[in-house]
Amino acid sequence: MTALRERLDETSDIEIARYLFEEIAAQTRDVEGVSRPAFSSIETATLQFLESFARKEGLAVWYDAGLNARFSLPHDKDAERYVLVGSHVDSVPFGGNFDGLAGIVAGLVCLLRAHRAGERFARPVHVLAMRGEESAWFGPCYIGSKALTGTLAEGELKATHKGDGRSLDDHMADTGLPMDRIRSAVPLMDLSQVEAYIELHIEQGPLLVGKGIPAAVVSGIRGNFRHRHVRCIGEAGHSGAVPRAFRRDPVFAMADLLGRLDESWSTILNMGDDLVLTSGMVGTDPAQHAMSRIPDEITFSLDVRSQSPKTLNDMRRLLHAEMQQVEKERRIRFELDEEMSVEPALCAPHLVEGLKAAMERVGQEPFVMPSGGGHDAAVFAAAGVPSGMVFVRNANGSHNPQEAMELDDFIAATDIVHEFLKRHE
Amino acid sequence: MTALRERLDETSDIEIARYLFEEIAAQTRDVEGVSRPAFSSIETATLQFLESFARKEGLAVWYDAGLNARFSLPHDKDAERYVLVGSHVDSVPFGGNFDGLAGIVAGLVCLLRAHRAGERFARPVHVLAMRGEESAWFGPCYIGSKALTGTLAEGELKATHKGDGRSLDDHMADTGLPMDRIRSAVPLMDLSQVEAYIELHIEQGPLLVGKGIPAAVVSGIRGNFRHRHVRCIGEAGHSGAVPRAFRRDPVFAMADLLGRLDESWSTILNMGDDLVLTSGMVGTDPAQHAMSRIPDEITFSLDVRSQSPKTLNDMRRLLHAEMQQVEKERRIRFELDEEMSVEPALCAPHLVEGLKAAMERVGQEPFVMPSGGGHDAAVFAAAGVPSGMVFVRNANGSHNPQEAMELDDFIAATDIVHEFLKRHE
Repeated sequence: MTALRERLDETSDIEIARYLFEEIAAQTRDVEGVSRPAFSSIETATLQFLESFARKEGLAVWYDAGLNARFSLPHDKDAERYVLVGSHVDSVPFGGNFDGLAGIVAGLVCLLRAHRAGERFARPVHVLAMRGEESAWFGPCYIGSKALTGTLAEGELKATHKGDGRSLDDHMADTGLPMDRIRSAVPLMDLSQVEAYIELHIEQGPLLVGKGIPAAVVSGIRGNFRHRHVRCIGEAGHSGAVPRAFRRDPVFAMADLLGRLDESWSTILNMGDDLVLTSGMVGTDPAQHAMSRIPDEITFSLDVRSQSPKTLNDMRRLLHAEMQQVEKERRIRFELDEEMSVEPALCAPHLVEGLKAAMERVGQEPFVMPSGGGHDAAVFAAAGVPSGMVFVRNANGSHNPQEAMELDDFIAATDIVHEFLKRHE
Repeated sequence: MTALRERLDETSDIEIARYLFEEIAAQTRDVEGVSRPAFSSIETATLQFLESFARKEGLAVWYDAGLNARFSLPHDKDAERYVLVGSHVDSVPFGGNFDGLAGIVAGLVCLLRAHRAGERFARPVHVLAMRGEESAWFGPCYIGSKALTGTLAEGELKATHKGDGRSLDDHMADTGLPMDRIRSAVPLMDLSQVEAYIELHIEQGPLLVGKGIPAAVVSGIRGNFRHRHVRCIGEAGHSGAVPRAFRRDPVFAMADLLGRLDESWSTILNMGDDLVLTSGMVGTDPAQHAMSRIPDEITFSLDVRSQSPKTLNDMRRLLHAEMQQVEKERRIRFELDEEMSVEPALCAPHLVEGLKAAMERVGQEPFVMPSGGGHDAAVFAAAGVPSGMVFVRNANGSHNPQEAMELDDFIAATDIVHEFLKRHE
């Protein structure tokens, strides 16, 4: 750190970025990868580390009402209107280091570039380091940005922590958040001050790697509807002694349902629509199941995503229709838990154009793609804030320690954001 | 007990049966149902309880080389050739009380009837209370009868206990069994002495309940091939960010495979062949899985049973062909653990006829059906011992505490066995 500080003016962006990524990884290391739980002391410590770094660099630093850290050039702190450059500091358990953190580091690099060069941005810029985006800890996602925009639902606050079983409400209260305002769905910030929300994020899919492109502008963000636990309830029986006609087998029923959904998925893609479908958690009860026992129940999750609200509605209807059909044919019963959903979000066309133009100016061939994963940007877009995103090429997906963003690609994507902030009026 | 003993001559069969079932249930009660683990001290204690009961009733009692208990009329103990009436004392974890135990109690009731009446059977009779039939504890099934007939495979001895992880070999050695002979696959008894093996067992399926019949003669026993752990290995990814064409999703691949097998199952039944198919244990890894993560792996069991060796071979080939097809189409990989298998067994035609005739003589309409579950009888049949079986009506299947055999039905089925033993030459 000392070495870096003393020669900061001579220190390249890439060295600053490497330093921040490596320091934070070292401080939040888990048995595998990193773990920065949402609304935890580790998350707070990460924000405090960034605060101390930025303060030493001469940036303005403060916390907003959601206890997220904000950074700006000193003269931009109290701007009437500003462009927000944000992302989240939390990670999934045993996660990678770049999902979320990359967007914050990119914002800081932009601020430091301007600060070193004594430049101003076209419009004032606030960098926002948010808490609690990942759904892995409590179930709900985008908790931090939902709290900021006053859109966190009462049911979401009741969600319980995967580890300790305590509610999200309790964890947020412990962190010191203003729960009365959050419970009443009052926005924690004046959204009318925000001209645009810009987020740089690693791509969580394989497209940029496949195409050999370091960065892309995002056209929009898939929405989703999800069920954590779909129960398929049948009737237990001896594997050898119950003829097919007498069976009420939940495993074959689940396979049947997934097969039907898979077929529709293929059809929908062939029609040119956008859809992805995942059942990430599947299981019979280990306390009960046996090789020679038809299980009485299997539980599985469903995660359905599309850029199109219509496709999501079509799939919701299709899911219910296919479940009914399988229930009838196989004499089992499906039970859905409460649906969680996020509407698809389109990036603001003028921001997509602005980012494309910036991409061209820094010497990159403009490339635009949809975002498969959801992001805080979708929450701001839904709250009426024009939003835009830039993706960085990243191998091996996200939510795992094998995330592999190259720092050269990170700088290429940061160049796009920086160029945009300098010129965008 | 005292009350029962003092007036035994006046005590009805049904009271003796109730006493034995209730005493053993009380002694082997678990938090739910009963648990009589294979090759455990609980199993040994159950045999000792039966020994003590039979001794007091004046029957001959001894242990064979497999440490199973044997019972006979005193003058039949050393017979050159005899009819063996047997079943097993062990149960699955949290199991029902009647699966296995019913066949032993039926044999004892037959012996007591003859002993009380001073009658002899047409041929000498040995009742055999065996250890270790259930696969739930170690994986392999029919361990006790395989050891007796010298057909326990080396690989089976290496199978490990679900609870403590120690091998079957260790558990059998601890129980005091002659492991050198068992490991060398030397039969522990002279099979040429056995004229026939007869087993009464609860039906484990719903057929007799459906038909309103208390008992049936069994025509044959389904064989099976089974895999405890089939791994389907794909590639993890973000549920929203990986397009369908890039996915290697093991959950949809498993659903696809089960769907294909289900379709073939239906075709095979339509052609008049016999088949049942079960995947009783299914699961993604709870330490890794998440709603928004395409899992890298799912594990599931397969249990395939048929009365026809040809159908089993056809299904084995079909399974491999379909796995290859799914592997190719979905770019995943299946890994099968070692196959466990039991050949189908036909009951000896002269025993089926003899039991049918006995059924008619005791005033029951003869009814013959296949056995879906496997039984020790299949092992004796495979070892060349003519074997026959009688089923008792039983609601709610087996391997669960809700097993519901009525004692009246039990006596009706025991009547068939008793009548057969009295008259069969």
